[in-house]
Amino acid sequence: MSIVGHLINGENRTDATRHQDIFNPSTGQVSNQLAIAGKATVEEAIEAANAAFPAWRATPPAKRARVMFRFKELLEQHADKIITLIGEEHGKISHDAQGELQRGIESVEYACGAPELLKGEHSRNVGPSIDSWSEFQPLGVVAGITPFNFPAMVPLWMYPMAIVCGNTFILKPSERDPSSTLFIAQLLEEAGLPPGVLNVVNGDKEAVDTLLHSPKIQAVSFVGSTPIAEYIYATASANGKRCQALGGAKNHAIVLPDADMDNAVNQLLGAAFGSSGERCMALSVAVTVGNAAGDALVAKMKQAMTGLKVGAHNDSSNDFGPVITKQHQEKVVGYINSAEEDGAKIVVDGRNPKIAGFSEGFFVGGTLIDNVTPEMISYKEEIFGPVLQVVRVESMQEAMNLIDAHEYGNGTCVFTRDGEAARYFSDHIQVGMVGINVPLPVPVAYHSFGGWKRSLFGDLHAYGPDSVRFYTKRKTITQRWPSTGVREGAEFAFPS
Amino acid sequence: MSIVGHLINGENRTDATRHQDIFNPSTGQVSNQLAIAGKATVEEAIEAANAAFPAWRATPPAKRARVMFRFKELLEQHADKIITLIGEEHGKISHDAQGELQRGIESVEYACGAPELLKGEHSRNVGPSIDSWSEFQPLGVVAGITPFNFPAMVPLWMYPMAIVCGNTFILKPSERDPSSTLFIAQLLEEAGLPPGVLNVVNGDKEAVDTLLHSPKIQAVSFVGSTPIAEYIYATASANGKRCQALGGAKNHAIVLPDADMDNAVNQLLGAAFGSSGERCMALSVAVTVGNAAGDALVAKMKQAMTGLKVGAHNDSSNDFGPVITKQHQEKVVGYINSAEEDGAKIVVDGRNPKIAGFSEGFFVGGTLIDNVTPEMISYKEEIFGPVLQVVRVESMQEAMNLIDAHEYGNGTCVFTRDGEAARYFSDHIQVGMVGINVPLPVPVAYHSFGGWKRSLFGDLHAYGPDSVRFYTKRKTITQRWPSTGVREGAEFAFPS
Amino acid sequence: MSIVGHLINGENRTDATRHQDIFNPSTGQVSNQLAIAGKATVEEAIEAANAAFPAWRATPPAKRARVMFRFKELLEQHADKIITLIGEEHGKISHDAQGELQRGIESVEYACGAPELLKGEHSRNVGPSIDSWSEFQPLGVVAGITPFNFPAMVPLWMYPMAIVCGNTFILKPSERDPSSTLFIAQLLEEAGLPPGVLNVVNGDKEAVDTLLHSPKIQAVSFVGSTPIAEYIYATASANGKRCQALGGAKNHAIVLPDADMDNAVNQLLGAAFGSSGERCMALSVAVTVGNAAGDALVAKMKQAMTGLKVGAHNDSSNDFGPVITKQHQEKVVGYINSAEEDGAKIVVDGRNPKIAGFSEGFFVGGTLIDNVTPEMISYKEEIFGPVLQVVRVESMQEAMNLIDAHEYGNGTCVFTRDGEAARYFSDHIQVGMVGINVPLPVPVAYHSFGGWKRSLFGDLHAYGPDSVRFYTKRKTITQRWPSTGVREGAEFAFPS
Amino acid sequence: MSIVGHLINGENRTDATRHQDIFNPSTGQVSNQLAIAGKATVEEAIEAANAAFPAWRATPPAKRARVMFRFKELLEQHADKIITLIGEEHGKISHDAQGELQRGIESVEYACGAPELLKGEHSRNVGPSIDSWSEFQPLGVVAGITPFNFPAMVPLWMYPMAIVCGNTFILKPSERDPSSTLFIAQLLEEAGLPPGVLNVVNGDKEAVDTLLHSPKIQAVSFVGSTPIAEYIYATASANGKRCQALGGAKNHAIVLPDADMDNAVNQLLGAAFGSSGERCMALSVAVTVGNAAGDALVAKMKQAMTGLKVGAHNDSSNDFGPVITKQHQEKVVGYINSAEEDGAKIVVDGRNPKIAGFSEGFFVGGTLIDNVTPEMISYKEEIFGPVLQVVRVESMQEAMNLIDAHEYGNGTCVFTRDGEAARYFSDHIQVGMVGINVPLPVPVAYHSFGGWKRSLFGDLHAYGPDSVRFYTKRKTITQRWPSTGVREGAEFAFPS
Repeated sequence: MSIVGHLINGENRTDATRHQDIFNPSTGQVSNQLAIAGKATVEEAIEAANAAFPAWRATPPAKRARVMFRFKELLEQHADKIITLIGEEHGKISHDAQGELQRGIESVEYACGAPELLKGEHSRNVGPSIDSWSEFQPLGVVAGITPFNFPAMVPLWMYPMAIVCGNTFILKPSERDPSSTLFIAQLLEEAGLPPGVLNVVNGDKEAVDTLLHSPKIQAVSFVGSTPIAEYIYATASANGKRCQALGGAKNHAIVLPDADMDNAVNQLLGAAFGSSGERCMALSVAVTVGNAAGDALVAKMKQAMTGLKVGAHNDSSNDFGPVITKQHQEKVVGYINSAEEDGAKIVVDGRNPKIAGFSEGFFVGGTLIDNVTPEMISYKEEIFGPVLQVVRVESMQEAMNLIDAHEYGNGTCVFTRDGEAARYFSDHIQVGMVGINVPLPVPVAYHSFGGWKRSLFGDLHAYGPDSVRFYTKRKTITQRWPSTGVREGAEFAFPS
Repeated sequence: MSIVGHLINGENRTDATRHQDIFNPSTGQVSNQLAIAGKATVEEAIEAANAAFPAWRATPPAKRARVMFRFKELLEQHADKIITLIGEEHGKISHDAQGELQRGIESVEYACGAPELLKGEHSRNVGPSIDSWSEFQPLGVVAGITPFNFPAMVPLWMYPMAIVCGNTFILKPSERDPSSTLFIAQLLEEAGLPPGVLNVVNGDKEAVDTLLHSPKIQAVSFVGSTPIAEYIYATASANGKRCQALGGAKNHAIVLPDADMDNAVNQLLGAAFGSSGERCMALSVAVTVGNAAGDALVAKMKQAMTGLKVGAHNDSSNDFGPVITKQHQEKVVGYINSAEEDGAKIVVDGRNPKIAGFSEGFFVGGTLIDNVTPEMISYKEEIFGPVLQVVRVESMQEAMNLIDAHEYGNGTCVFTRDGEAARYFSDHIQVGMVGINVPLPVPVAYHSFGGWKRSLFGDLHAYGPDSVRFYTKRKTITQRWPSTGVREGAEFAFPS
Repeated sequence: MSIVGHLINGENRTDATRHQDIFNPSTGQVSNQLAIAGKATVEEAIEAANAAFPAWRATPPAKRARVMFRFKELLEQHADKIITLIGEEHGKISHDAQGELQRGIESVEYACGAPELLKGEHSRNVGPSIDSWSEFQPLGVVAGITPFNFPAMVPLWMYPMAIVCGNTFILKPSERDPSSTLFIAQLLEEAGLPPGVLNVVNGDKEAVDTLLHSPKIQAVSFVGSTPIAEYIYATASANGKRCQALGGAKNHAIVLPDADMDNAVNQLLGAAFGSSGERCMALSVAVTVGNAAGDALVAKMKQAMTGLKVGAHNDSSNDFGPVITKQHQEKVVGYINSAEEDGAKIVVDGRNPKIAGFSEGFFVGGTLIDNVTPEMISYKEEIFGPVLQVVRVESMQEAMNLIDAHEYGNGTCVFTRDGEAARYFSDHIQVGMVGINVPLPVPVAYHSFGGWKRSLFGDLHAYGPDSVRFYTKRKTITQRWPSTGVREGAEFAFPS
Repeated sequence: MSIVGHLINGENRTDATRHQDIFNPSTGQVSNQLAIAGKATVEEAIEAANAAFPAWRATPPAKRARVMFRFKELLEQHADKIITLIGEEHGKISHDAQGELQRGIESVEYACGAPELLKGEHSRNVGPSIDSWSEFQPLGVVAGITPFNFPAMVPLWMYPMAIVCGNTFILKPSERDPSSTLFIAQLLEEAGLPPGVLNVVNGDKEAVDTLLHSPKIQAVSFVGSTPIAEYIYATASANGKRCQALGGAKNHAIVLPDADMDNAVNQLLGAAFGSSGERCMALSVAVTVGNAAGDALVAKMKQAMTGLKVGAHNDSSNDFGPVITKQHQEKVVGYINSAEEDGAKIVVDGRNPKIAGFSEGFFVGGTLIDNVTPEMISYKEEIFGPVLQVVRVESMQEAMNLIDAHEYGNGTCVFTRDGEAARYFSDHIQVGMVGINVPLPVPVAYHSFGGWKRSLFGDLHAYGPDSVRFYTKRKTITQRWPSTGVREGAEFAFPS
């Protein structure tokens, strides 16, 4: 058993005010100890980032980008180790961890384009012989706080862009599965990043609050649950920082009668149960329009789920693995129980899966619940488990009203062949990421990720073009050179 | 004497919980009464804006832009009336009010380009036969809260862009000089804007707080002083809204020894005393490098100021007019007194200007103070009056350190002929708007306006390109059409 | 009868080497005389444009744009006169001329956004303390040569953008209907354009060749037939100029079995017969997939065409007017005859329309031809008349192969409800402008217009974003300021 | 001695109609034989490229970009071999070849950003429920014809962008030094490029004309001398292709009296003599303003040139190597002779350099000529050798007039400290690439490269943003879905 610590100013550190167990969710056993950083350690990291800023800011963007090119190479070379680290602490099956890593690498690829992305706008002759242009300069030290469910990908949404824009960074990862996160950060050092530009501190609320209140932290990116997102957003803002805080989700798919039902079922299998449903883009509610569509979907899904295989992370024939903790396992089962008590029909029951050789693992099997209604607690809240609920309605408008009435607005999808239905849906639905026959409409790395309503607080989305604007501040220069011997008249009026 | 009221749902209204005097600062007399809206009136405006939103959102951007084209025509036709209204309540001389209006019109011109500005990004084949694109959709109802010093221009920074992006708007103008603001809003109705899309409510903190706490308000733009900006930003953010809040300033010009001194003096005259210094971009501190430059600047400025003419708004031969209130006049004089007490030298004293025929007006004459030091209260705080202070230093770096140490970072300028000095300054100075021999480096309408440090809270600047992003939310659509008869395999792994 | 002449250096001129009749196509009578400019007159215009260039180039873009804002106002004020002038010389019905003018105005609206569109790209620190940026500077004198079918719109595609980018312009309009073109150019002068910036010369091949060979002409935009477009492109290029030359078209609509057939018929009526089919975007071939679709389309179209009304331009109840000349009338009828001889079926025959009171007008009635095959001359060539031909095929792929095999690739359309069919079509079809249920997919003014294959020669399309790049040349500046006293080492290696 | 051949459809080939000697310019000896492809071989390459197009076009841009990421890695791994190959056939010293390769790699880095660069523009609601967007689709097979002086870099300006945009490519490199070019192309295959996407054919005019006349070639990029550029541009255009053809140069630096003279001399040493002056961006004329500046420059330059070392490519202590051929050596010496005969003063004479051990090499030493005038043949023509000529004038305007009067307009530079002089120069000079104290203002890879006047034919510049537009064609889609049961009225008027 080893101690997972911090990366501060280029050094691996294990300072701790206390330690906390890290589990292997497949076995249910403690695998490592996490060093919990106190305020002093976090402040040291902030100091290191602050000290590293001037030189990094002055490094030309093309040279900063070249570190990202090398980082991409190293991530690809060390993919197997990263996938293993994710699996051991998160429980993700290797094909799924590979997908997560690939998405993270795509954000690094996008960061390699920094010289293009950082271009300002130049205007000749805004007035006679007066020019004006904008520069997008780095902010200084910025912080990222990331969740357990994508220990590789979500940090890679943040710091490659922040750093390539010229900032220095403090990352506070999840305390559940920090090892892959820390290892990846070490690879970036190996790629040639100067010490202090990226710092990783493991910790809890004390670490978070230190970041939120430090006058040296200019901006905060957060991904996690909505209540914490709200706290982060309000606190960072009250301290004068810019902030983007991504919260929870309850993503619905509408299944229209003209949908290719086999395709829809196949897509939903992955979208609902992949990664045990522990994704903020998991598709957890299917809204069927008309009972024929509802019956067909439930029947085909029930049949398809007979092939679903839940099990330990290290067997790649499994479709998905355990959930993150014992507590979370109980919470997910509790939601299934509540649905049953509220009158929904448990079509496929994953509450007591038997996983040979892993009896202590935190497993929940794939669960399908029919006849769910909007009043049920299992509908209102985010379950974050391998549970697909079916709500039956009579019209597409009724389905859209359901989605718009929900507090979250992260992702959604419609299954149809009809161009008009798809266009009406995508135009009007109050959700930030929309799929047309794409159940997990996660934007590619060169677009940006963000939900609406209570799924995101702030105005700029994560990664992609919006992240360039988030991690830079605009400076506008206006320039006129005095011509020799020409004496200009005073201008009292407002310049026009 | 008439009552200045509100514009709600296309109707002129005078609801009031109470009334407040509006003064003509040139005469010192009460000229009009302002109707102060209570919570119910503000909520009625919000309801009107909310009801107008769906139809306005569905109006094609090109048609929305055509309303702005007509608005521009009307603003030009009614320029004289607007200038008079500004002069009567703010005290601005006509040439200055004309400049303000012109700058406001330029923001309307920019809004006319909405169809271009609202384009999303389209990617063919983000995967095989999968496309993805972004749309920048309106937020809903948004609010603007604006200051007294530019009653025409600052509101025009906000609502033309917000509205042309498809939002509906509530404007809460300054209670000091609301008449030109209201008249301009009426012109936009005349230009063809549907009722309820733009609403104006006059009021005080009750009105502001109603806006900040209403769940129907999606975003808030504010321009005013820093303490209020902080309050607005923290409160709006705590309520989950996006917010941009622009605060105070203390804008320094560095005068290098190689500067064209006559040109610098002429530029500074307008930048320091124009509009009585009541501009967030007023140039209020000159930092001279080397005593030769300091002596030359003070001597030439003193000489130039003999021609400065302060007086009533309606005499266009005046250079600038009164300050906004009796209280503010006393505050400005208090800062001059404090500088004198702190040991600075009052080179030109504007404390008791005699304005024939306007003995009750709120006048302060142009004032030049030499030998100011950073410890003085008159240096630390924003005076917002016709006062230019000179600080003498020995090097450009010392001058830059002064600027970077100040809490504000709105605008700044360097006077020089030297390319290297200008580039070093513009690159490194911690200020958002930088002039090279341009003392009021207000970005043109097709760039964006914003300071750094405690001069702006938020991540997106006012007007120009940033305002498009501020007033819209990003939606990303990912689309794949199922091909007939092709049955795709389930995808459990994360999509890559 | 009056003489239609030129606009050179702000003066109306009637220089002529000879004169040519202008007809009113509705009456078949000569209405005006056109002054044909010889080489000397064209060279005078070029000189005027060349002399006007330096001052216009130095005028800030925002001021240039303001001339366009005023131009738009004047176009709207004088719409009735313009519509009448178009009708008298082209034969277009007022509602159609109004549509043409509106599209032209939209290009002027786009030109009003010049300050935004002309922004260059600025990069800080391309190397240590080295900056680089691009400017898009005007070319100098550029020329436009325009066709008869849109005497208002096509010139407005060209010169507003060319001029707002800082160029000066020579327009050589069609000799058939020059009056509206000339009148509109005069309005731009009235809007405040300095003399010489826009010049109009009427003429023939001598005028065109003078433009193509003048070393002072930097670029040529052309819209007309493909053989002339090829000549213009090759000749301008051989003279070292940049050139964009738009030629002919043969636009097909595919009607799939799932199309909303009533909608398709209604759309095709306007697209095939509007403006007598004298549009390069006219929809002249309907390709039906499956005989059921073919039968239904022909039957419904035949029925719908009973309400089609052809007649003189001044009766707004008419659907369309005469063709442009007696010769063209005979040519169109010749194509109908040839189709009949080749075995096609004339379902609706417009060869001898009786128009009461206009027996000498150049009329052809709406004509529907079924069972057309690709070998027929009427299929291969552009008819440019009110003739819709139906080709019947068995599959969508067969329909697409037909389109891709045709020499032209201007516009095309598919009628369907199916998302997959639409996406496959729009992705793969070798045509530059594609409609999904939009039979005239003319891009709006803020996109760009251009076909593929032999419908356009050059790399940049007309109007919209591409026109900014066409009418400007890129200048890239790289800047490093020497720091005092620092002596840099010689660099023999290639800079990196 | 080996045979340097072709790369066609992924295979190395040595087809030849005849063979031609390749020399090592340092030794003057034949080192290899070049296989000269005839028409049939070129057509085979075109067929291969044409066959590879559909699958490559359908490959998602992000996957195409990943081949470029791997290509960059391989270029860096094999840098030493590439540098050696360049040196052996071109004569470039290793530090210079390294610089060339690095610049080429930067264009590959830019190509890695293809997913971002290929984004189209999406407009929601161009009309009610009508959307429109643009796609930038590949052209098909495109060709590049490249010069001897940058055998690695100039091809890398072209095909990485062309290929990553989805095109397939035929490269015809210089016959003087093809080995590094061919080796690099093989690395791209190794990086995973499918066979046929990139093809290299070595040849002469027969190969070039086959490319220019093939209907399957959609576009041609050329870099070389101006007479050939004109031929390529006119011929490609007459065949309906798009073309960009870059030609010769005569780049002037203006040395103002306030310049940092030591810095200017150091910069000019590298810019005039680096790579033996065989660069289209070589700085070959220094224009001094005022005799003091002239005298100082010539004196300091003469002194500095005593340290200049010319010699064989494989000794990295040399500053520059031989010129490319015996014939070119004689031509350069001829220009020096003519200048002497025309009355110029040979200050430093490089006509007979003695290089120990390389008596047969094609060497010319660094040469400085003073008192050159615009009438001299050595001033008018491009020398392309290590010769710096000094022209003395009395004013900056006179210097600028000289530059503007020259037929070429590729690059230029001003040495000054004065902001106003720099801005006036960069704004007004009729040259496409401008340096402020940067004597070789080659734009970085994320800007674009191109001269003005007779230095470039076409409208789009090489590499960077312009190359994306050059290597793609715009498609604009307009989409409306018919709503169920709604029957729309016919539209005869032009749509508005």
